[in-house]
Amino acid sequence: MRSPHAFRNGESPTLRDHTHFHSTVTAQKLRRFNSLILLLRLASFSFSLASAVFMLTNSRGSASPHWYDFDAFRFVFVANAIVALYSVFEMGTCVWEFSRETTLWPEAFQVWFDFGHDQVFSYLLLSAGSAAAALARTMRGGDTCTANKAFCLQSDVAIGLGFAAFLFLAFSSCFSGFRVACFLITGSRFHLYS
Amino acid sequence: MRSPHAFRNGESPTLRDHTHFHSTVTAQKLRRFNSLILLLRLASFSFSLASAVFMLTNSRGSASPHWYDFDAFRFVFVANAIVALYSVFEMGTCVWEFSRETTLWPEAFQVWFDFGHDQVFSYLLLSAGSAAAALARTMRGGDTCTANKAFCLQSDVAIGLGFAAFLFLAFSSCFSGFRVACFLITGSRFHLYS
Repeated sequence: MRSPHAFRNGESPTLRDHTHFHSTVTAQKLRRFNSLILLLRLASFSFSLASAVFMLTNSRGSASPHWYDFDAFRFVFVANAIVALYSVFEMGTCVWEFSRETTLWPEAFQVWFDFGHDQVFSYLLLSAGSAAAALARTMRGGDTCTANKAFCLQSDVAIGLGFAAFLFLAFSSCFSGFRVACFLITGSRFHLYS
Repeated sequence: MRSPHAFRNGESPTLRDHTHFHSTVTAQKLRRFNSLILLLRLASFSFSLASAVFMLTNSRGSASPHWYDFDAFRFVFVANAIVALYSVFEMGTCVWEFSRETTLWPEAFQVWFDFGHDQVFSYLLLSAGSAAAALARTMRGGDTCTANKAFCLQSDVAIGLGFAAFLFLAFSSCFSGFRVACFLITGSRFHLYS
């Protein structure tokens, strides 16, 4: 049973019952919902890119330790690089949806793709950050950090940025989860309140 | 706009249009949905309890290391103990809902409570497991594990059980997330397909 307000993929407002649907209030809500998702994507892209760059540049000559010597730090770099690339792609699909009022892929595939990847990648970021934080904590009292304060400080900053990226991606997954539920219940990824 | 199939909190099927609602198919779907959630709760309870017990009993005399000497292992114990208690409470609310066909707390509060805690506690379990796995990995090559194989083996088992508990809790959060979306869209925590 589809709610009369459902805005099906591919059916632009002009095709529908003009007066009933095309109220400025609902169009505004749609745009606000999409812009919020786009903002969250932009934030998780920025933080994950910053985290990956901070970790990548955390080497100071052959005498001092390198980030790639430690598994957990490599994990942080790889996880944040993946999320940065994923966020760029997702921002693209958001802009596509804004401009064309339809999803890049078939609607069912698109909503499940977004939600599935948001959840898995936020778990990936959290896991990487926790493992690196545990390692950084054990290193803090040891010789490595006493002799190389800058190295440890920069890895802490990279880990912190990774946790920030996780937070924004976790919020994105709530919105994309809502879109999946909307799709399962109403047949459309948006549910508009009259 | 509420879907005609919405099964409001407190309105038992008998109060509604008997023939339309009380089809055996929809009642079965409701029960299946609830039993699946109850099963997931039971599984996350069993694994988190087992993980906490394995970690708690991981001390062998004064000469060998104790689990509480390590931050990440303490984190695993505390996180799994919290989730075990939470899962017991949630199983109680599930049974309550089964028997009374209404939620323990007001519906809006209950669905948000379940989803919010499922999400946060699954992140907690994942974070604890990742931190402990990183520590266990660094210990594996070191003296601690060479001299105390049993200690390291038992902590690995506890960490593995904690990850299993995380998986079941993550699935629970998908279902409780669906209930929240259902509630936001249809005004009821269940959406029944005719």
